[in-house]
Amino acid sequence: MAETTSDSSPVDFRTEPARYRHWKLSFDGPVATLAMDVREDAGLRPGYELKLNSYDLGVDIELYDAVQRLRFEHPEVGAVIVTSAKERIFCAGANIRMLGQSSHGWKVNFCKFTNETRNALEEASAESRQTYLCLVNGPCAGGGYELALATEWIVMADDGNTAVSLPEVPLLAVLPGTGGLTRLVDKRRVRRDRADFFCTTEEGVKGKRAVEWGLVDEVVPRSRLEETARQRARELAARTDRPRAAKGIVLPPLERTLEGDRIAYAHVTCVIDRRRGVAEITVAGPATAAPTDAAGVAAAGASFWPLAVARELDDVILHLRTNEPQIGVWVVRTLGRADLVEAYDRLLHDHAGDWLVREVRLYLKRTLKRLDVSSRSIFVLVEPGSCFAGTLLELALAADRSFMLDGTRTGQSLPPASIRLTALNFGAYPMINGLTRLASRFLGEPDRVDDLKGRTGQDLDAAAAAAAGLVTFTPDDIDWEDEVRLALEERTAFSPDALTGMEASLRFGGPETLETKIFGRLSAWQNWIFQRPNAVGPKGALQLYGTGERSDYDRGRA
Amino acid sequence: MAETTSDSSPVDFRTEPARYRHWKLSFDGPVATLAMDVREDAGLRPGYELKLNSYDLGVDIELYDAVQRLRFEHPEVGAVIVTSAKERIFCAGANIRMLGQSSHGWKVNFCKFTNETRNALEEASAESRQTYLCLVNGPCAGGGYELALATEWIVMADDGNTAVSLPEVPLLAVLPGTGGLTRLVDKRRVRRDRADFFCTTEEGVKGKRAVEWGLVDEVVPRSRLEETARQRARELAARTDRPRAAKGIVLPPLERTLEGDRIAYAHVTCVIDRRRGVAEITVAGPATAAPTDAAGVAAAGASFWPLAVARELDDVILHLRTNEPQIGVWVVRTLGRADLVEAYDRLLHDHAGDWLVREVRLYLKRTLKRLDVSSRSIFVLVEPGSCFAGTLLELALAADRSFMLDGTRTGQSLPPASIRLTALNFGAYPMINGLTRLASRFLGEPDRVDDLKGRTGQDLDAAAAAAAGLVTFTPDDIDWEDEVRLALEERTAFSPDALTGMEASLRFGGPETLETKIFGRLSAWQNWIFQRPNAVGPKGALQLYGTGERSDYDRGRA
Repeated sequence: MAETTSDSSPVDFRTEPARYRHWKLSFDGPVATLAMDVREDAGLRPGYELKLNSYDLGVDIELYDAVQRLRFEHPEVGAVIVTSAKERIFCAGANIRMLGQSSHGWKVNFCKFTNETRNALEEASAESRQTYLCLVNGPCAGGGYELALATEWIVMADDGNTAVSLPEVPLLAVLPGTGGLTRLVDKRRVRRDRADFFCTTEEGVKGKRAVEWGLVDEVVPRSRLEETARQRARELAARTDRPRAAKGIVLPPLERTLEGDRIAYAHVTCVIDRRRGVAEITVAGPATAAPTDAAGVAAAGASFWPLAVARELDDVILHLRTNEPQIGVWVVRTLGRADLVEAYDRLLHDHAGDWLVREVRLYLKRTLKRLDVSSRSIFVLVEPGSCFAGTLLELALAADRSFMLDGTRTGQSLPPASIRLTALNFGAYPMINGLTRLASRFLGEPDRVDDLKGRTGQDLDAAAAAAAGLVTFTPDDIDWEDEVRLALEERTAFSPDALTGMEASLRFGGPETLETKIFGRLSAWQNWIFQRPNAVGPKGALQLYGTGERSDYDRGRA
Repeated sequence: MAETTSDSSPVDFRTEPARYRHWKLSFDGPVATLAMDVREDAGLRPGYELKLNSYDLGVDIELYDAVQRLRFEHPEVGAVIVTSAKERIFCAGANIRMLGQSSHGWKVNFCKFTNETRNALEEASAESRQTYLCLVNGPCAGGGYELALATEWIVMADDGNTAVSLPEVPLLAVLPGTGGLTRLVDKRRVRRDRADFFCTTEEGVKGKRAVEWGLVDEVVPRSRLEETARQRARELAARTDRPRAAKGIVLPPLERTLEGDRIAYAHVTCVIDRRRGVAEITVAGPATAAPTDAAGVAAAGASFWPLAVARELDDVILHLRTNEPQIGVWVVRTLGRADLVEAYDRLLHDHAGDWLVREVRLYLKRTLKRLDVSSRSIFVLVEPGSCFAGTLLELALAADRSFMLDGTRTGQSLPPASIRLTALNFGAYPMINGLTRLASRFLGEPDRVDDLKGRTGQDLDAAAAAAAGLVTFTPDDIDWEDEVRLALEERTAFSPDALTGMEASLRFGGPETLETKIFGRLSAWQNWIFQRPNAVGPKGALQLYGTGERSDYDRGRA
């Protein structure tokens, strides 16, 4: 199988509407329209044509950017219509030739990003109060229907041509990879036997039956389609709490330098050690004091430290996941003053009701969730000079393992490291399981979380942090180097696959949500199928698609 | 890779204590002891030695049998100590050479059965009030520790030799495959960073740290080990509600004939159509009236119809799963009188407090759950002459799809088919997600379940059953044959792998439990890893284990 990721320039996740090739973003007061208009000849990689509004990673990068910008740049928008700008097709889903020529790792990473973007649509509807709805104006298949499923209201044309379908199982021998199965039974609560029939019926379901089975919310004749969708959008927009008169903030292109094995942003730097298979990520705390109110946040705009850090972390995670699959361990440090971080957290806490502050918090939440679901081992080092406080302490709580230096370093004048809890550790950043990282950490001892609330704002040194259960190991200066080095050497020597499965199993104890089901269960099954000869072998359905040849499946059931 | 399942006589799941080769079952009043004493030379298949109390499917079949018999044959037993009869080892887990030489399908099926048996231990503790505890009297690794994790109290020797460990990731590049990761964080609620360290530490954790981290419940010096475990067992047994003076019922060897493609028991028959890849299973309703009280149930013993059906269905499911992996679709019918089934259900309902009736209900529950998690498509046909009432209606509710003949058949004098709800459909047989099959079916319309309660005991014909949402399709005599035939042809033409992933995703909407996490998430990840070259390739860890050679992993993270 050709590798879609290597032998090419690195994928860049940074874009902006003026550069979109596949989406058209338009505005009509409180209603925005995001119309898919994929350029066939503008695939991210050579070797496939993006016919019938099918998508690849490049198309989804633009969608992701649009969803972000709608939140930050358009406080006046309360509803977003997702539709197609093509005449005869809504969306045919992920491009099959692209999947057929992709490596296993590329497919898995592609699905993860598309899943995160679909989840972001739902989060925008629920928490940014910018509600997505879908205007299905032509055949809506596979990933196309999964995109529709991620919106809160689906209006479909009632004609002979337009149907929703998930043809992956009958046609391609894989699963709908972007949450479709889960959203069918858990979000739309389609009866399981109907879902079974629907997912094995290539041509899908249309018209009244689609409504009756709960696959879409309404079907209307083509003549009234557009107006019905606009009407629904206006109704949904009328319910938002977003401030129509507020001014959005601009998200300018993210500045970064990519030189050899070093990636640098304003606050985040990352150095890749290829020999060891380790990326060392350092996040700098704020250099200046926090604004005093929400107006100050708006004035700072994209340079507001928490927003800038969210954007930079988001980008470095996406970059490493997509372009550096061989780097299996991420080591995270911070550098700076805990009191400044705490002051920013206080601002984010005290002005949580402000629309822009809310967006910044939600963006940090999403970025931390992206870290949680990354298939990389995450080790955090808490050293003198670090600032693991509040929002940045979440990085340590997200880690598979953390090391905190107990005491000072010989020959260094810095005081011993400490960590600090802020109010934001107790609810601002839930994981995909719906719990805070503290609650997930202390599933067996929920009282501990309450006790820790009382210690908000205190500096906890290594002994106190260990006693509080907030760090894993606390070697002193004498043991530090060897212990950390050995742990990293050991980690990078294990099978990456076993680590991925283990981490996915240990990170999310406790309750399950749509998101944990998608990332835990559905993705695992899909990854399994993406390894099976019936799907990806030389005679597998993904390879033979479009050739006219039929797969001859190994019939053994596993 | 050699196939462990084919070219051999079919695996037989029927056994009894007199024939055990690997376990010793002993009794001391209310406390039973189940001691593992694996015979190295008595593997189920040639090619590996069961050293260090390691196990294969044959060892686990005996464990499963023992757990069943303890429930039915020993009402006086309130606690069961699981331990090792060997001097220097508790259990080394699943045999690695066996895994190394097994096909993918065999490994997956083996893990499923061992998982079901571990879950049965937990169900026995919680619902049969026969509480399992574990006496760890030597190194307890991998599957050995996962067996311990399935008990409710773990007492471990405090010596230099005895530790618990999950060395799969560092040693074998696979996951602990029998619920270990899930039980660590979700049952024992071990802190996730500690779990991460533990699961990557080959030598495991012993002594006080094992208690402090919650990996075991107590450690005691070897001199007091036995007595401490007995003491705990007596305490647990004292809390049971099982009737110490009652007489158990004997489970005689299950009679079955296996002739060509036909398997027949007293009430269940199964005909395999290899050309179509379909197994046709027919369950006969009771031939005689139900006993009138619990004493009548005890007098009937193993021939009590619901118990006999549970045993037969259990055996046929296990047989088909293990010995007939190429048969991807199970078609289920019933034959008999609904009023008799209903009378048995009434007895099971009215005498639910009787220990034996409770056991029969729990066995039916487990068997239906085994059906739910089977990686086969399940189609149910409701035809004239059938008796889909109550307990047997659960089969239709467990199906991926059901067809009910609307009206009579030309040339047949039987009245039209009907189905009937009984009280047992509303709580007796929860699925692994903790919901009844009715509640799972109507996740989006919970009121429907309440409405259906009011229709208990009514005969619902095809139109009524369809309107009630209880069946999928209701063709009449003219369409029946074509519609069913086409559905089956289509189903058997799809990729078995895609169907497995799809069915696992659609069958269990709604809440998640330890069991759904094990069968949904953990198993899917394990199956994925069981496909990856780093584990199973010629240079994978499972293949190289014991050769002294080291795996050279592909370091790409997926």
